[in-house]
Amino acid sequence: MSFPCVDKLASRTVELDDNGPEPSYDRVVTGYETFEYPKPFLLDHGGILPKLDIAYETWGELNENKDNAILIHTGLSASSHAKSHAKNTKPGWWEEFIGPGRYLDTNKFYVICTNVIGGCYGSTGPSSIDPADGERYATRFPIITIFDMVRAQFLLLDSMGINKLHASVGSSMGGMQSIAAASLFPDRVKRLISISACVRSHPYSIALRHTQRQVLMADPNWNKGFYYNSVPPHVGMKLSREIATISYRSGPEWELRFGRKRAQENQTPALCPDFLIETYLDHQGERFCLQYDANSLLYISKAMDVFDMSKSATDALKEQRRRNGPKIEKILHDHQTVAEVVGDQSALEMHKASAPAPVHNEKTRPTLTTLQETDPAVQDLIDGMKNIKMPTLILGAQSDILFPVWQQKEIAECLRVAGNKRVTYYELDGMFGHDTFLIDRVSVGGAIKGHLELLD
Amino acid sequence: MSFPCVDKLASRTVELDDNGPEPSYDRVVTGYETFEYPKPFLLDHGGILPKLDIAYETWGELNENKDNAILIHTGLSASSHAKSHAKNTKPGWWEEFIGPGRYLDTNKFYVICTNVIGGCYGSTGPSSIDPADGERYATRFPIITIFDMVRAQFLLLDSMGINKLHASVGSSMGGMQSIAAASLFPDRVKRLISISACVRSHPYSIALRHTQRQVLMADPNWNKGFYYNSVPPHVGMKLSREIATISYRSGPEWELRFGRKRAQENQTPALCPDFLIETYLDHQGERFCLQYDANSLLYISKAMDVFDMSKSATDALKEQRRRNGPKIEKILHDHQTVAEVVGDQSALEMHKASAPAPVHNEKTRPTLTTLQETDPAVQDLIDGMKNIKMPTLILGAQSDILFPVWQQKEIAECLRVAGNKRVTYYELDGMFGHDTFLIDRVSVGGAIKGHLELLD
Repeated sequence: MSFPCVDKLASRTVELDDNGPEPSYDRVVTGYETFEYPKPFLLDHGGILPKLDIAYETWGELNENKDNAILIHTGLSASSHAKSHAKNTKPGWWEEFIGPGRYLDTNKFYVICTNVIGGCYGSTGPSSIDPADGERYATRFPIITIFDMVRAQFLLLDSMGINKLHASVGSSMGGMQSIAAASLFPDRVKRLISISACVRSHPYSIALRHTQRQVLMADPNWNKGFYYNSVPPHVGMKLSREIATISYRSGPEWELRFGRKRAQENQTPALCPDFLIETYLDHQGERFCLQYDANSLLYISKAMDVFDMSKSATDALKEQRRRNGPKIEKILHDHQTVAEVVGDQSALEMHKASAPAPVHNEKTRPTLTTLQETDPAVQDLIDGMKNIKMPTLILGAQSDILFPVWQQKEIAECLRVAGNKRVTYYELDGMFGHDTFLIDRVSVGGAIKGHLELLD
Repeated sequence: MSFPCVDKLASRTVELDDNGPEPSYDRVVTGYETFEYPKPFLLDHGGILPKLDIAYETWGELNENKDNAILIHTGLSASSHAKSHAKNTKPGWWEEFIGPGRYLDTNKFYVICTNVIGGCYGSTGPSSIDPADGERYATRFPIITIFDMVRAQFLLLDSMGINKLHASVGSSMGGMQSIAAASLFPDRVKRLISISACVRSHPYSIALRHTQRQVLMADPNWNKGFYYNSVPPHVGMKLSREIATISYRSGPEWELRFGRKRAQENQTPALCPDFLIETYLDHQGERFCLQYDANSLLYISKAMDVFDMSKSATDALKEQRRRNGPKIEKILHDHQTVAEVVGDQSALEMHKASAPAPVHNEKTRPTLTTLQETDPAVQDLIDGMKNIKMPTLILGAQSDILFPVWQQKEIAECLRVAGNKRVTYYELDGMFGHDTFLIDRVSVGGAIKGHLELLD
């Protein structure tokens, strides 16, 4: 029996070894602007980045009042390239959504999109150079949170003189950021849109990301994150992407698209990819395996797991920031190094708020309407979202298993119970699963446009 | 940052290297009987096993008429040890279901369970010795089907003088076998029970198994299947099991059981397992990684993908068996070797029936009631199940994503439209996902008992 799928992996390893160590994802995205924040940036879990680069792109014109800006937050592996423009004519990941007269109308709005910190498309992340020693951070990079990503984005807005966003818009992990932005800066966000996101990751979604991290970290080429001068963990990245793809799409779509069709109908079944759905997954893995930095995937996927809008959790992070704040002064004024100030970052303890940790011990999954008085976890979530009072659109897809609609409903209901009088909640049917936000531009785009152009 | 999850894998590799090549799963199951079929056994895709061992266990007594036997078919990785007994007192995988006065009542019935061919718990599989050269088959083992598993089981029944089963019972892949048995031997199966199975694998389930195979085959220690004299692919097996576990369980169960609890609440988030759901998956992978043969997993998981009760598919296999039948005579009477008769097994072509391959091109997933006249794939399935007329119980769990209830309904509806007047269909609620058949013994066991003890 022959195993072309195994041979292919081996020959790519040889090829990468021959081509030298330059990471290929460095060339994936071009034509972005870079905002350089020259001061140390304190992270939620106590780590400090000595300086910060934020890659960003914009579309449309900022008006004189600087009040027509929309900040788009991205999903895990997306770049700032949401839409093509003169400096990069390749289609962006939301190409059809943005433009003159489109759903995010650049005749009216100034649209901004950044690469999140932790990423590898121009913003500071694990593949960036640590100024302390001129080497890439690799897994010396500190743990980051969704709130860290958002605070970095607002430094960019500060530099542009944008005090108040017309809207904060995001899908998937971008929806988490969008909600975090509304919560961190309630006076600077006029409208909130969250699509296929959540306010705390459920264990099934953590499990799906866990397996992606595990297959990646099990690749010997990952080498505990220090692979930048040798063959990258392309096998682990490919496998990871195949698992991710399962969580991004839906069964009904695949039933129609692939059914039980085989790549070569007349062959004896093979252990390597054989059914069309297998060759599709294989292709998705192949396409991605050198397009994104493995360490970025690990750090950002973990940030998604850890995201929690509960009051006890957000209070704990706030308290950590407060306690660690003086460290920045030590660097700026006493000229200490980051290493001197931070010490062993991994030994930092999370300071927990005094509220007891919420425990689920009910026989069925909590549903808000019946459990808000009795379930401390739900009440904690409501308490954590009390300052999000702006008009809000929550959108979800019924075929999404990664961010299921019960989580979308949870966001909407928590906001309402917390006192937000202007929450719109839409559930989309359709069969594209989690990726609906990238594909179904009529339903998703229409809802966005309606909310962005709401009369006050 | 430290990576204990990576260090653990590396130290197990060293340990296995020190301990020598003996596969550890050889010791997992003991106390079974072995039926030795001494003649060549022709497989559906043209491969030939020169001889066949079938490991089996029994409970209760076969009555004088030999008409009280129940054959239990297993899921992918299960052994014949469904229930403890004198020769092996360890609890079996259906321990509480079987016994005097229990759901499968050994006061009334003679219960038989086998290890499927392709397995590694006593029946002939890839880890067995090829008599041609005294070496383990490894991936020289031929491709097998669900029908092959069933035809092997009926050789065992023949040897016991059992002409007619009181019932054929199976869950998951065992349900596929149960249906295949009823179809191959309609006069030898009096009652049919299929739990959380399907009559053709849908692409999402193929995708889930595909990723399990891919992570396994990407482990360098898999070595294209030839690992029996060295370190086994324990890392790939562990990762594969973690992915499988996600497909076996359900979100709602994990929400209640693990929620967002972390293993060590006060630590900074880590890239290695951190949330309880992660340590649970890690543990499931650890437990399994040396308990089952990697090649068995590959072959049997592929057999599940390929299973298809459509008339065109079953006709094609029948035709292949007919065409290849004379090869057995050449071995038995002309004393040719298997290699001489079979040639290069991988070059065998599947003979397809002349009916055009069914294609799904509807806008929504076919539902039987509206599409049976227009969808050739559904009609093909109905035609393939026309000889299954015995009383049948189809059982499914609403939280199962691997074998979702729409597939259970598909079995029941196809059987009914094909003319079976005695189809019972139950959907279970509850939150244990696909594994409901192992856990919810009251609901599952009750349905089984009711059907086994039906009045004629």
